[in-house]
Amino acid sequence: METSYSYLGAKEMKDIDDELMADLRYSVYQLMELAGLSVAQSLYHYDKELGGSDGKKVLVIVGPGNNGGDALVAARHLKFFGHSPVVYRVYYPKRPKKDLYEELVTQCENLEIEFIDELPEDITTEAYDYILDGIFGFSFSGSIRAPFDDVITKMGASDVPIASIDVPSGWNVDEGNVNGTFTPSMVISLTAPKKCMEGFTGAHYIGGRFVPKPIIDKYSITLPEYSGLDQFARL
Amino acid sequence: METSYSYLGAKEMKDIDDELMADLRYSVYQLMELAGLSVAQSLYHYDKELGGSDGKKVLVIVGPGNNGGDALVAARHLKFFGHSPVVYRVYYPKRPKKDLYEELVTQCENLEIEFIDELPEDITTEAYDYILDGIFGFSFSGSIRAPFDDVITKMGASDVPIASIDVPSGWNVDEGNVNGTFTPSMVISLTAPKKCMEGFTGAHYIGGRFVPKPIIDKYSITLPEYSGLDQFARL
Repeated sequence: METSYSYLGAKEMKDIDDELMADLRYSVYQLMELAGLSVAQSLYHYDKELGGSDGKKVLVIVGPGNNGGDALVAARHLKFFGHSPVVYRVYYPKRPKKDLYEELVTQCENLEIEFIDELPEDITTEAYDYILDGIFGFSFSGSIRAPFDDVITKMGASDVPIASIDVPSGWNVDEGNVNGTFTPSMVISLTAPKKCMEGFTGAHYIGGRFVPKPIIDKYSITLPEYSGLDQFARL
Repeated sequence: METSYSYLGAKEMKDIDDELMADLRYSVYQLMELAGLSVAQSLYHYDKELGGSDGKKVLVIVGPGNNGGDALVAARHLKFFGHSPVVYRVYYPKRPKKDLYEELVTQCENLEIEFIDELPEDITTEAYDYILDGIFGFSFSGSIRAPFDDVITKMGASDVPIASIDVPSGWNVDEGNVNGTFTPSMVISLTAPKKCMEGFTGAHYIGGRFVPKPIIDKYSITLPEYSGLDQFARL
């Protein structure tokens, strides 16, 4: 297993994402499906390593952007894997009306995945086994505005282990936890780890096995190695 | 492992596919990505069962419809898994200009997957380890017209093991091999096995782990069981 790999900055990651969808002609549907699948598989794998059984209650916290889309895809696959996702959507100032998100929500509803309109005051280990953090991804910067501040505070106060998609929500992508929010138990980096993950000591997974050679060459990046047919790797 | 499952007719399968994309709001990108991924994983798994190593040469024969799209997605994932797909596109009367196919082809080209413009007269085991048959799927019926007849004849004359996506090309979806074409070594049924697969004695895999409860209930179908986080199952 290759143990050295690149950490990407926010700007570089945005360029790569743009390029994948423009010149390299990936659709957001494909990238999000593969990303969300790898998130669900990573969490499944992590839970199994801890000796877990099926039927885990996973509180999936869904933000307004692509990180939230990845979370909705992950919720759908977790349900197929035998777990019990519960979805909470947090929006500001109102729900986006994008077709893509409406579609992903409909897909979850048709699997009888539960949606809740309010977060409980305390997110307890009696109610949930994991929190899947899909609020902000690599495009977040600045300070944490309402209503996200309350949600992130509740997550930090909870004893439930948090698995963050790509970047822990509220962290600066380049500089890490400068806003002083929670530290997740687990992070699933997508495409490549971001700079904020240097020195992270929790469980670190990678997903998004779709980065083609032109990207690797152009940005001189070293990716973690996947094995066999796996869509994720434990780093 | 549940050993009894439904075999779907052509009409029923078309209704289910339409319904997935209309009422249930799956995009063709999502379904094709998950289907193609499961095809690549199944072939990878089959080859490993036979003691195979990496770097297998897979001749991917791509037809003009969704079965060809699944094949292009599978070629991309096979490349990530360490195999060497070579793509031959067979069209009648000319190449479709659909964005989706152009995108899938571009994605393969950017992985440096080889495309060939003509099939060799003999498809030999010296040149190829497998043929991945993505010519026709569940919407094929009637007789086999040019130029597909020649291609299918060459496949039948070859000693290279054939893996068919969803339905062996040229077979009647409900009635089986009434046109007297080849019998593949392996079939990866998508969504659910079709009627033509009853009594099939080769290696039988299932992929397309995305069928939601409203479909299962409405059509009273019993699906094969998947295990853990797998996107395919060996039946």
